[in-house]
Amino acid sequence: MKGYLQVYTGNGKGKTTAAIGLAIRAAGAGLPVLFAQFVKGMKYSEIAALERYKDLITIRQYGRGCFIEREAANEDIVEAGKGIEDVEKALSDGKYSLVILDEANIAIHCKLFSVEKLLQVINNKNQNCEVVVTGRYAPQELLDAADLVTEMKEIKHYYAKGVEARVGIER
Amino acid sequence: MKGYLQVYTGNGKGKTTAAIGLAIRAAGAGLPVLFAQFVKGMKYSEIAALERYKDLITIRQYGRGCFIEREAANEDIVEAGKGIEDVEKALSDGKYSLVILDEANIAIHCKLFSVEKLLQVINNKNQNCEVVVTGRYAPQELLDAADLVTEMKEIKHYYAKGVEARVGIER
Repeated sequence: MKGYLQVYTGNGKGKTTAAIGLAIRAAGAGLPVLFAQFVKGMKYSEIAALERYKDLITIRQYGRGCFIEREAANEDIVEAGKGIEDVEKALSDGKYSLVILDEANIAIHCKLFSVEKLLQVINNKNQNCEVVVTGRYAPQELLDAADLVTEMKEIKHYYAKGVEARVGIER
Repeated sequence: MKGYLQVYTGNGKGKTTAAIGLAIRAAGAGLPVLFAQFVKGMKYSEIAALERYKDLITIRQYGRGCFIEREAANEDIVEAGKGIEDVEKALSDGKYSLVILDEANIAIHCKLFSVEKLLQVINNKNQNCEVVVTGRYAPQELLDAADLVTEMKEIKHYYAKGVEARVGIER
């Protein structure tokens, strides 16, 4: 089965959530999945939930916590670099049917690695691997290379009403 | 914890997938979930995958298969009606922290039940329940009532290249 490149971007809620759903659907069909999460380093409920699928879904996190509101440090660049190397290896050896690069767009946006590096890794992938990249600010070069792009567009968000992120719902 | 109304609509890929992700995240936090699926009646891989969470995620399907390309029959209306009744009961007794009405927008679009009926059910819910409604063609009345709306917008889709729905990826 030939694998494609899917991108989920935009400012709306649902990008990482959809990536979780994709991982679960693939696991439901018995396909092995690598879920590589950049930037975020926290143990969200979804990561806890995926533990039930540890026979099929491998989780790797390369962030040191959310630094969207602080400046990236050298350690952040080193961690993200390890992540992209692991993904490169996973994509070339074809061990996983689905490889998810969650928040990789944010990693690029924060200059943890370049879009050229990401595209090089994707271009050298085993052709059977499906690749999913999420995060707002998807660079145009990635959109051009993608086979499928969905923009999650925020029409209305309860954060505007002062609702904070809730365990089990947002995190 | 007060529950809100979330809507995922639009013509892009990722709506049901995000709903699966929401169910999994809630289950990861130990919250009980009702996943009510309208219109669709098939055993997709995601439904199979959710079986590992059957202690926390209850799945109910009220469709008789995909009839988007045929006319709705009386049996479709009866099935959807049962679905909305089950959801009404689940939302009022507060047994579930999260209730997902997958493809309910399509059910309304196909006149299986009215948006007024759906809004009545939601307005009478236990205030702690979070409600998620998915499907393209979300009616304006539902968008007006929602606390959070994400539009999944198709920017590019490989179906245009002739790629068919694949087990483990789309279904």
